[in-house]
Amino acid sequence: MQRSPLALPFPDLGSIAGVRIGTASVAYKAWTRDCVTLVELAPGTVVAGVTTQSKCASPEVELCRAKLAGGQARGLIVNAGNSNAFTGLSGRQAAEAQAARVAERLGCDVGQVFSASTGVIGVPLPVDLALAGVDAAHARLGQADFLAATNAIGTTDTFPKAATASAMVGGARVTITGIVKGSGMIAPDMATMLGFIFSDAAITPALWQQMLAAATATSFNAITVDSDTSTSDTVLAFATGAAGNAPLASMDDAGADALAAALADVCRQLAILVVRDGEGASKLIEVTVSGAVDDASARRVAMSIANSPLVKTAIAGGDANWGRVVMAVGKAGEPAERDLLAIRFGDTLVAQAGAVVPGYDEAPVAAHLQGQEVRIAVDLGLGHGRARVWTCDLTHGYISINADYRS
Amino acid sequence: MQRSPLALPFPDLGSIAGVRIGTASVAYKAWTRDCVTLVELAPGTVVAGVTTQSKCASPEVELCRAKLAGGQARGLIVNAGNSNAFTGLSGRQAAEAQAARVAERLGCDVGQVFSASTGVIGVPLPVDLALAGVDAAHARLGQADFLAATNAIGTTDTFPKAATASAMVGGARVTITGIVKGSGMIAPDMATMLGFIFSDAAITPALWQQMLAAATATSFNAITVDSDTSTSDTVLAFATGAAGNAPLASMDDAGADALAAALADVCRQLAILVVRDGEGASKLIEVTVSGAVDDASARRVAMSIANSPLVKTAIAGGDANWGRVVMAVGKAGEPAERDLLAIRFGDTLVAQAGAVVPGYDEAPVAAHLQGQEVRIAVDLGLGHGRARVWTCDLTHGYISINADYRS
Repeated sequence: MQRSPLALPFPDLGSIAGVRIGTASVAYKAWTRDCVTLVELAPGTVVAGVTTQSKCASPEVELCRAKLAGGQARGLIVNAGNSNAFTGLSGRQAAEAQAARVAERLGCDVGQVFSASTGVIGVPLPVDLALAGVDAAHARLGQADFLAATNAIGTTDTFPKAATASAMVGGARVTITGIVKGSGMIAPDMATMLGFIFSDAAITPALWQQMLAAATATSFNAITVDSDTSTSDTVLAFATGAAGNAPLASMDDAGADALAAALADVCRQLAILVVRDGEGASKLIEVTVSGAVDDASARRVAMSIANSPLVKTAIAGGDANWGRVVMAVGKAGEPAERDLLAIRFGDTLVAQAGAVVPGYDEAPVAAHLQGQEVRIAVDLGLGHGRARVWTCDLTHGYISINADYRS
Repeated sequence: MQRSPLALPFPDLGSIAGVRIGTASVAYKAWTRDCVTLVELAPGTVVAGVTTQSKCASPEVELCRAKLAGGQARGLIVNAGNSNAFTGLSGRQAAEAQAARVAERLGCDVGQVFSASTGVIGVPLPVDLALAGVDAAHARLGQADFLAATNAIGTTDTFPKAATASAMVGGARVTITGIVKGSGMIAPDMATMLGFIFSDAAITPALWQQMLAAATATSFNAITVDSDTSTSDTVLAFATGAAGNAPLASMDDAGADALAAALADVCRQLAILVVRDGEGASKLIEVTVSGAVDDASARRVAMSIANSPLVKTAIAGGDANWGRVVMAVGKAGEPAERDLLAIRFGDTLVAQAGAVVPGYDEAPVAAHLQGQEVRIAVDLGLGHGRARVWTCDLTHGYISINADYRS
């Protein structure tokens, strides 16, 4: 798979105190690369998570949801090459057996071991490989860095994706580092997004979850590649407490705002990286909607634009086709008044008050559309609701990846 | 534009008593073909209609909605090559002026003249051409048949689309003939569906509207090409009363059921023809969902499958990728239980009870997917809700039509 033209360099990442990583190869697919990632987390590590809204979630997702209530984590195990989704009882048993093996190796409660899998659907995770993977990765704990882990959780991602940020919390510097795998495709499966965030912050599980949920709304839940939702999407955030800050328990605590902002920043960076590796993507598209009756309505209008195949193909073709944006606003089913709409491409006002602007000059818009980063802004003129989402264009590459190769 | 591989021959159509057609060329685009269609309807003709749910509807759509309340029609004017959508006050005035000219030529009330336009967005309908078109088409009234009208209302449709059916109503044979233009593209615009149905039935406006609304639910509202909704979608049904049947006023009247069934049949045929001419379509896909909690829920699940780019690209590739169907069910947001799901491709049960069937043999599924007509059936196992929708696959042709050519 060709590296995305929108790829960014892998950032300089240190380690996070309390986090040890080992990776191993067990070839769930015909891969020689590592595809099992084991992370050992220091005792006392706190966990937060968000999972797919799919009604057909994988057993790993179900197990994560159940264990998140406990708020504590000692281990994370990630399989790439087999999603274990829609595999019935045997898939569930395989996931449970693998988590039990992790608990045994790490000497912890299985309720503190979190799992995620991505890859082919409908094939139960092979238990022998899953257990061998735990053992092999455990033997190499501490030998893998974040780049190795990022490569090992990937499927057909075309570049490794990570982000980091730090914040001062009560005199201590706290670091947050996240890795993500995105919308690369692994035939015959849908794309899955898995994100893992590690911090040395000391924080209560409830506040960490609150921060992650808030950050997710404007990052992972504000991106779309093709409107499809995986059965396995999972974001887990771990906080080891090793930074030594006074433990945060409330957003009123000193430094809580800074930590939340750093977490939101990491999540936003990771989410945009997923779009930058969207299947066939040649352009990153930022869609901003303002003037909606409320933020939720703005988000739905923005997603209607970002998911419109006609908008996405127009951008792919460098076509300043604002009529398709009008169409996508109109079909969103949200409050909108045709004659109050204003539409911008880049910095250029294209349409206003229900019609194209007088003397509209397409040249600056066409120039903007030649770039790799395209901005579409719509003001609905109704209220103060705002939202920003990101997507990519829809190209022949998407069709080639998803239709041309038989599974 | 290449003729769709899913095209069907144009049916043998007679005329409908009380309906006279004239077409003319005024070149809204650089076309020599006819692009204005005028239909004169006998006094007493009843009209029913359904229009786009877009919040950014064209002035023609707004005018139709207002006039439908009257229930009577004497004229229909259709422009191809300019949709007149998002054109502000001048577009509205152009539509009104053209309807007024039709009323003048036909000697009728302007409230009984219906308009529809399809084509480029954001350019006000040129009034001089619009009026000249009325005059020229009026001079040729009675000289055009349904095929000529079908060609004149088209944009980049790759084949003309029509259907007919008849019913016995109280001893009189009543005919229903419909023509439709579909999801051909006219840069730089979105596709628009316009459908016009003509019958010689004698029927009250209220009952005719009731029949059309019911027929639309399982036809025009049960198809999707790419999930995008035009600002101009319009279906109008006219009943001249010339068949001489005892006028129908209630579904309890003799023959009402037969007429409703014939209307539903015509609408369903027309809707499927639109999908068969979907941009880049190489396969017609029928998605049936049963076992939902209710029909509306079944429809939303079916549309989630039919709109999924990953499902549509898999079908394009002849890939028996039932995992993507699981994904599309899961993301629909409707009640669904993973472990109760059953999925069929063609006549083959693929997955049941949350897992692939034991001993699953892909061969018959792969054979089914080689055909031009693909059937996907999902049973949710929850209730008695059912829905059937149609879509087409997503191919390189779609990208080529919508991205490769600058407007």
